[in-house]
Amino acid sequence: MKLAYLGPPGTFGEEAALRYGAQSDGGFELAPFPSHAAVAAAVESGLADAGVVAIENSINGSVAETLDILIHETALQIQAELVLPIELNLLAPPGTRLQDVAVVYSHPQPLGQSRHFLERVLPAAQPEAALSTAEAVTMAMRRSGDAAAIGTLRAAELAGAEVLARGIQDTENNVTRFLVLGASSPPPTGRDRTSIAFTFAEDHPGALAGILDVFADAGISCSKIESRPTKEAFGEYVFLVDFQGHKDDAAGQRVLAAIRPQCAMLKVFGSYPRFS
Amino acid sequence: MKLAYLGPPGTFGEEAALRYGAQSDGGFELAPFPSHAAVAAAVESGLADAGVVAIENSINGSVAETLDILIHETALQIQAELVLPIELNLLAPPGTRLQDVAVVYSHPQPLGQSRHFLERVLPAAQPEAALSTAEAVTMAMRRSGDAAAIGTLRAAELAGAEVLARGIQDTENNVTRFLVLGASSPPPTGRDRTSIAFTFAEDHPGALAGILDVFADAGISCSKIESRPTKEAFGEYVFLVDFQGHKDDAAGQRVLAAIRPQCAMLKVFGSYPRFS
Repeated sequence: MKLAYLGPPGTFGEEAALRYGAQSDGGFELAPFPSHAAVAAAVESGLADAGVVAIENSINGSVAETLDILIHETALQIQAELVLPIELNLLAPPGTRLQDVAVVYSHPQPLGQSRHFLERVLPAAQPEAALSTAEAVTMAMRRSGDAAAIGTLRAAELAGAEVLARGIQDTENNVTRFLVLGASSPPPTGRDRTSIAFTFAEDHPGALAGILDVFADAGISCSKIESRPTKEAFGEYVFLVDFQGHKDDAAGQRVLAAIRPQCAMLKVFGSYPRFS
Repeated sequence: MKLAYLGPPGTFGEEAALRYGAQSDGGFELAPFPSHAAVAAAVESGLADAGVVAIENSINGSVAETLDILIHETALQIQAELVLPIELNLLAPPGTRLQDVAVVYSHPQPLGQSRHFLERVLPAAQPEAALSTAEAVTMAMRRSGDAAAIGTLRAAELAGAEVLARGIQDTENNVTRFLVLGASSPPPTGRDRTSIAFTFAEDHPGALAGILDVFADAGISCSKIESRPTKEAFGEYVFLVDFQGHKDDAAGQRVLAAIRPQCAMLKVFGSYPRFS
């Protein structure tokens, strides 16, 4: 099995892909791609059998690029989800002393998520942006002992960097949810989740309430409700709902049939076993 | 009036603050702060009279940092909103020729929003991350004619940069909504919007539908419905709703009184005239 992910190697995307590959039967091979859109395109074109994309982080919320791919760009189906704890670490060339660190590289998001640590431990160090945590480690390794990077332990291993501090993120509850996209969703297991998106046939007060009432009447819990700009006009939204159950079980089919007439667009992203 | 905004000068935050200041009666003065949290703290402590924060972009969705400040950190009230078109421009030291540009600096978000332009016009140039569009312009100005930055026209003016290309963003509908935070919301104008956040007293299928039914029954349109992780447990959400009307008019007061018993937490961020 060939698994596409958002590279370069050493990012959290690679870690998620490694975990998913290790769970599956038989061997697997990883292939890094430069964007989430490229991961989806690789699976669509047969370059990969499945693709791992980040969908939501507990601190930063949803990954807009992935939502937009699911809404607008791909016919791929979700076949699995994974929830990965995000551990941020301070990495540097071997021999670097904490007191010599004048520059800290990372993607703006992990820089923000480590703000309290940096203010306490490295108040004089200059934060510098990088396009990914893996690139940040490469940038720190190129300098002569006055720089560090915030990244994964795997990136440290790949680049030969030393770990100056572990788990420097500001909150304990920093986890990212990843989805695995493939040609089709697996059959019902009895503990599934289904992800859908819709717009309203007619936008009026109560349109969303009308749709949520269908789920409530069927006794089905919605684990996530979210809106995204349609990109067509500001203030118009696509709604995204995750609900408990499978699109192919009796309750799921009944609910989807009941809401379809109320929607201008209804797209089922897939059904997959719940991670926990 | 002293207006705090997310600096440095030359960012879209400054442009929004300049527009808001120009609309108000009397003179105004701008004060840049290094984060949205610092903007809110400046207003709370009396360093500034009001603060301008980005809340939502039509391409990237909500600004998580601002939502979290409104939900968890501040008692400030929204007193106005502004919607600003986001124009991205390719800027460089005077005399730079397009064919010499080997490096393009910007914040990862504008780099992503100009991807099609960069692929077409500068396929060999290396994208490099910066912490803001204003910092990107400074970085490009420091190099000797082989670098450009993606930023605002105002940043070009401040840094003495030349505009190599205007409006390079991938889509036409790139707008950002800003909020102005202050001590209190203005009185009803008849064309207002109110922003609230809530969690459920009891989470069950239909909890959200029950609250939205209250708005539907009152004939009040909700212009935005969104969820944010509570940060306490993955899969638990705070819901954010914008509705038409004012918290102090009769309909607004009735609706807020009706939903309060269904909420564990209900926070009113404020009522303010709708921008359009």
